[in-house]
Amino acid sequence: MSSQMGVLFRVTTFGESHGGAVGCVVDGCPAGISLPLDAIHRFLKRRKPGQSEFTTPRAEADEPEILSGVENGLTLGTPVTIIVRNTDKRPGDYSDMSHVFRPSHADYTTLAKFGTRPSSGGGRSSARETIGRVAAAAVAKCFLETVLPDLQVLSWVERIKDIEAEISPAEVTFEAIERSLIRCPDAQAEVQMKKLILDAKTKGDTVGGLIRCYVTGLPAGLGEGVFDKLEADLAKSMLSLPATKSFEIGSGVSGTFLFGSEHNDVFDLDETGKVITRSNKSGGIQGGISNGMPLDFSVGFKPVSTLFLEQDSVDDQGNKVVLKPKAGRHDSCVLPRAVPMVDAMTYLVLADHYLRQCALTKTLNI
Amino acid sequence: MSSQMGVLFRVTTFGESHGGAVGCVVDGCPAGISLPLDAIHRFLKRRKPGQSEFTTPRAEADEPEILSGVENGLTLGTPVTIIVRNTDKRPGDYSDMSHVFRPSHADYTTLAKFGTRPSSGGGRSSARETIGRVAAAAVAKCFLETVLPDLQVLSWVERIKDIEAEISPAEVTFEAIERSLIRCPDAQAEVQMKKLILDAKTKGDTVGGLIRCYVTGLPAGLGEGVFDKLEADLAKSMLSLPATKSFEIGSGVSGTFLFGSEHNDVFDLDETGKVITRSNKSGGIQGGISNGMPLDFSVGFKPVSTLFLEQDSVDDQGNKVVLKPKAGRHDSCVLPRAVPMVDAMTYLVLADHYLRQCALTKTLNI
Amino acid sequence: MSSQMGVLFRVTTFGESHGGAVGCVVDGCPAGISLPLDAIHRFLKRRKPGQSEFTTPRAEADEPEILSGVENGLTLGTPVTIIVRNTDKRPGDYSDMSHVFRPSHADYTTLAKFGTRPSSGGGRSSARETIGRVAAAAVAKCFLETVLPDLQVLSWVERIKDIEAEISPAEVTFEAIERSLIRCPDAQAEVQMKKLILDAKTKGDTVGGLIRCYVTGLPAGLGEGVFDKLEADLAKSMLSLPATKSFEIGSGVSGTFLFGSEHNDVFDLDETGKVITRSNKSGGIQGGISNGMPLDFSVGFKPVSTLFLEQDSVDDQGNKVVLKPKAGRHDSCVLPRAVPMVDAMTYLVLADHYLRQCALTKTLNI
Amino acid sequence: MSSQMGVLFRVTTFGESHGGAVGCVVDGCPAGISLPLDAIHRFLKRRKPGQSEFTTPRAEADEPEILSGVENGLTLGTPVTIIVRNTDKRPGDYSDMSHVFRPSHADYTTLAKFGTRPSSGGGRSSARETIGRVAAAAVAKCFLETVLPDLQVLSWVERIKDIEAEISPAEVTFEAIERSLIRCPDAQAEVQMKKLILDAKTKGDTVGGLIRCYVTGLPAGLGEGVFDKLEADLAKSMLSLPATKSFEIGSGVSGTFLFGSEHNDVFDLDETGKVITRSNKSGGIQGGISNGMPLDFSVGFKPVSTLFLEQDSVDDQGNKVVLKPKAGRHDSCVLPRAVPMVDAMTYLVLADHYLRQCALTKTLNI
Repeated sequence: MSSQMGVLFRVTTFGESHGGAVGCVVDGCPAGISLPLDAIHRFLKRRKPGQSEFTTPRAEADEPEILSGVENGLTLGTPVTIIVRNTDKRPGDYSDMSHVFRPSHADYTTLAKFGTRPSSGGGRSSARETIGRVAAAAVAKCFLETVLPDLQVLSWVERIKDIEAEISPAEVTFEAIERSLIRCPDAQAEVQMKKLILDAKTKGDTVGGLIRCYVTGLPAGLGEGVFDKLEADLAKSMLSLPATKSFEIGSGVSGTFLFGSEHNDVFDLDETGKVITRSNKSGGIQGGISNGMPLDFSVGFKPVSTLFLEQDSVDDQGNKVVLKPKAGRHDSCVLPRAVPMVDAMTYLVLADHYLRQCALTKTLNI
Repeated sequence: MSSQMGVLFRVTTFGESHGGAVGCVVDGCPAGISLPLDAIHRFLKRRKPGQSEFTTPRAEADEPEILSGVENGLTLGTPVTIIVRNTDKRPGDYSDMSHVFRPSHADYTTLAKFGTRPSSGGGRSSARETIGRVAAAAVAKCFLETVLPDLQVLSWVERIKDIEAEISPAEVTFEAIERSLIRCPDAQAEVQMKKLILDAKTKGDTVGGLIRCYVTGLPAGLGEGVFDKLEADLAKSMLSLPATKSFEIGSGVSGTFLFGSEHNDVFDLDETGKVITRSNKSGGIQGGISNGMPLDFSVGFKPVSTLFLEQDSVDDQGNKVVLKPKAGRHDSCVLPRAVPMVDAMTYLVLADHYLRQCALTKTLNI
Repeated sequence: MSSQMGVLFRVTTFGESHGGAVGCVVDGCPAGISLPLDAIHRFLKRRKPGQSEFTTPRAEADEPEILSGVENGLTLGTPVTIIVRNTDKRPGDYSDMSHVFRPSHADYTTLAKFGTRPSSGGGRSSARETIGRVAAAAVAKCFLETVLPDLQVLSWVERIKDIEAEISPAEVTFEAIERSLIRCPDAQAEVQMKKLILDAKTKGDTVGGLIRCYVTGLPAGLGEGVFDKLEADLAKSMLSLPATKSFEIGSGVSGTFLFGSEHNDVFDLDETGKVITRSNKSGGIQGGISNGMPLDFSVGFKPVSTLFLEQDSVDDQGNKVVLKPKAGRHDSCVLPRAVPMVDAMTYLVLADHYLRQCALTKTLNI
Repeated sequence: MSSQMGVLFRVTTFGESHGGAVGCVVDGCPAGISLPLDAIHRFLKRRKPGQSEFTTPRAEADEPEILSGVENGLTLGTPVTIIVRNTDKRPGDYSDMSHVFRPSHADYTTLAKFGTRPSSGGGRSSARETIGRVAAAAVAKCFLETVLPDLQVLSWVERIKDIEAEISPAEVTFEAIERSLIRCPDAQAEVQMKKLILDAKTKGDTVGGLIRCYVTGLPAGLGEGVFDKLEADLAKSMLSLPATKSFEIGSGVSGTFLFGSEHNDVFDLDETGKVITRSNKSGGIQGGISNGMPLDFSVGFKPVSTLFLEQDSVDDQGNKVVLKPKAGRHDSCVLPRAVPMVDAMTYLVLADHYLRQCALTKTLNI
């Protein structure tokens, strides 16, 4: 169950960073959904490394291949399998470290769990594992666009370290995000963020920050009332991404500083008589169920653990060692590439909850 | 699946706040575990309302009854069912509101989801739903105490609104937490917090804050490497609690303000040769798997949504209305009673991951 | 997961035969379904012992109580919990046997699995465990009657030992089945069956046989194409009933004696243009998916294991012993009471697959 | 969930017969298991068509490729993905039939379920789907051989149509089964079976029969007491195989003709003091849990639905048509190739239940 998520829109990902391929199987996508290879390609391209000086130069081709579940560009209702070959394997890069536990990586815990670990690289804890998620999310996106044409999922970099963007969520566009090399649609903040990242890079250091996600066009009624609350599944999916430290829904941590009278989202009717709330501190979810207002949440990412600085550590033989990484291929800030990952997890959670809600509402013609 | 969690230690909760009973079924607890009724009773008592002027005066007896799965005080390996009768039903308290959507409650979303909603009270979104969780957690606690005698799960109130406690996690004791009526083991902060809560109460207003959880004695190796990361399941379980707004693991949001060189947890060996980390910004989890250091996370709770103030709203007939609650029985700050709920969710997640890891390690005699 | 079944219509049963209560939680039943207590009561009454000389005289009251999930006779969409108190506990009946492994019972295997076993009676392997299933099935039946008003699930005794009924499935009625004390709607065969059962009873011996189930009014499209084929889930559910030895779908074992040209179900159109098959050797399922023809399957039940005869055995101390049961309260033929259990499992499987199919078809307005 | 099975040893299969590839992902296999590619290859070769005149001449190369989860021949504890490319695609073979519902195939039901169906061939209902199962079972077999070195799973053809083999299960060897082109280790019966199959083939007709499976070396304690009884999961897995009509455990249907006094398996002690039963009508399972005696069950397979005879049918436009298949590539008897599929499903069920039991027993050092 480690590599599976979803109840009805069920995703399995697989693949080590230095094995034959990474990919996913999506079991439960309805039939008849248009799924062009290009849709997967475009989504994967957004997470691809090597896109600018702000991301790792590791240049994978990341060419997806659909192995099953699609015929003539339409889903068959059967499992959709997508793989991406690992073409840029350089196990040699890691050989020095194969016995050393890299600080704040999964080396030690992987050994503790399995009694063994991949001889090179991070195995499933590598950022490359997220390719399977993104490919699966491309399927989810195609599905959701068919059934919820007004749905829009937008994520962007809200903060890098202490540089905070000023952004009005309702005005952000996908184009504005993609125009920015670091996916921050506030041009002024972006300049400072770039400088911060390059400065850190120069020093062999790394930085983290915050990604915000804003979803419009989602109907009310998605999510379950107890353990599978919509925000609970979003939180889980986000905290399952590498390097994440926090999840906040709506007002988040800052909301805990308010009085109830300041925090409550008062109900009102819009001009069409539709129930809305005047504020959205709930972040679009009340009692675990979407209320038709925009989903609004943010995810904290720590500074990348791979440094180009000497660090103390220990090895798997019980020796204290000093880790001296040679120049390799890593991000000094993961956030620009994490934006499509946050999008991806959002699509996956929403596709699953959408199907779950359909089962209920179809049944009784609600 | 709404009311179920866990893969091997599988919990189902049930019950509306104003129905016949609330409770749980725990399927998957191993046989031979000592489960005295008193252990359940003590855990339930911690979440019970009516314990002081800082919590709701709603006084439920909350007497648990074990219906199955236990014989002579020992678990049988079969489903353990525990119920608590609802003795203090006063549906009349809510009749005025049965058509009005209370702001930031689940009234509107429940109707949107199901096409109907309970005529009185919050149904499954009531805080009373958590009785089933706490009862199930008592089973998990008894199980974990048997197999991990050094395990200690401690949660406390770290902050109420802007009053922040100063607490050294390693020195906190269960007794110190329980001695405090609001479960904040910093006596100075507690005085201010009490004042803040009573002031809010006087005004018909409410406050929120932060609960911190600290777990020691957990072995390395628990948690899965991809979707079911330990912090992901903790995040989901915490965000499934009513009124939660945020989850932070280890350094959390504040960690995103650091450089990687400040944030990395350098590995070291303790005097016995055991691998430890010099700092614990990871919060005891790396790559989704516990590393043997203390789990350390915090959960934000919003100010309670039920106010004793007039609020604008709408009703289910499409009318704008003014909601004037008469004096009722609600907390003006949920945090003191939420502490055992955070404990509870932690026990449930750990029991499940412990069993999952046992399957792997037993297999190969790791 | 031992005591749970279903993906969307998710049932948990609980309770030992000699504990406080047995029962079920149904999680996932849509809201707004009429669920009168009487519907549960009637279903339970059909499986109740003590109804005639052909079944065990153990007379449980079997009064169901709905603890949650229902308000004003309608489901809320939340977990429906139903319990039946154990009123006729006589642990003394079993005390002699508490160390002896009764032949073809679960005593030995329960000990092997759990390292312990209930001191009295069969625990979860008791026929009384099926009360939870039947109560849950009453919920499923109420749900399915709402959404598929033409659905009819009929099971009956087709054979006892070598006495075979001659029955035309399309002409059987529920009334005819219930009119028969042993639930065999062929009056001639019934006479012989009764004699056979009473003869066996007189000798302290027991008999088994075959139950057939026939379902009409089910739409095409239910069931999944690979592991969760409709017949696969039916087979699992039937083999999960105590004392079952075989499952056959459609032509079953006898179909394996035919040529393909004799066995194929040729497609045709009925007068309305609807696709039908001229024969129904498929038993209403092709490729794991219902085809709109009647479901038709049968389930073999072994002769009851509890005999009133001396039997060799061993005890849990490693001694060979002779088991001399005193007169107790057991069926000498389980089939009359197993008929509602077969019905029950059928309703549970169909309710789950119906909801699963709704998720797909709602999505795309099929 | 259609294409997934297992709780801890979790298998997903994918692939259409005429798409890019078929295969599987195995999530949950412990780390450190030796998994040579050759082990997969050998298992796949057993189910391969084109091996003799008794099976379809469709000659797929069936070369497996391991895409993930294995390094240096050892499992990593991460998902093991295995694919087999479809090299012998001839969609043209099927084009005539793309609008016709082939009798007793899944064409009509697939359309009813999904609103669409693959334009050629059987999609997921093709026998080629079982490649994923067999590949996954090779992983399960390698795992089980590591942890249960005495385990032996043997299946063979027990009956073709009315030709019944006389076989003493305890004396059958793997070599004897594989030496027989139709996998029937009774040389005399084999001769008659071969003749029967070839006669049917000559007439364009097909035959079915019975496969028996016999498992030795399995410890007591596997299986769960209620819904996930070991025989229930075996039944489900077998009925999920294409063309299956029946499942019988132990004495099966014939056991329902006996008196209880004939049917009960009396307990005894062997020379080492181990608990055994004198007979094995239970088929190695009592109360859903293995008792340490051999598992013994049989599975009925219908005669193949693809005939080389004219058949009436209808098409998806509502026309009555006559189906005239041209000479194609199909088995006239599926049983020889179904033997490794029965093996495969058995390995998958046992691997999962073994892990589930480990979680319990590791926990308490049973």
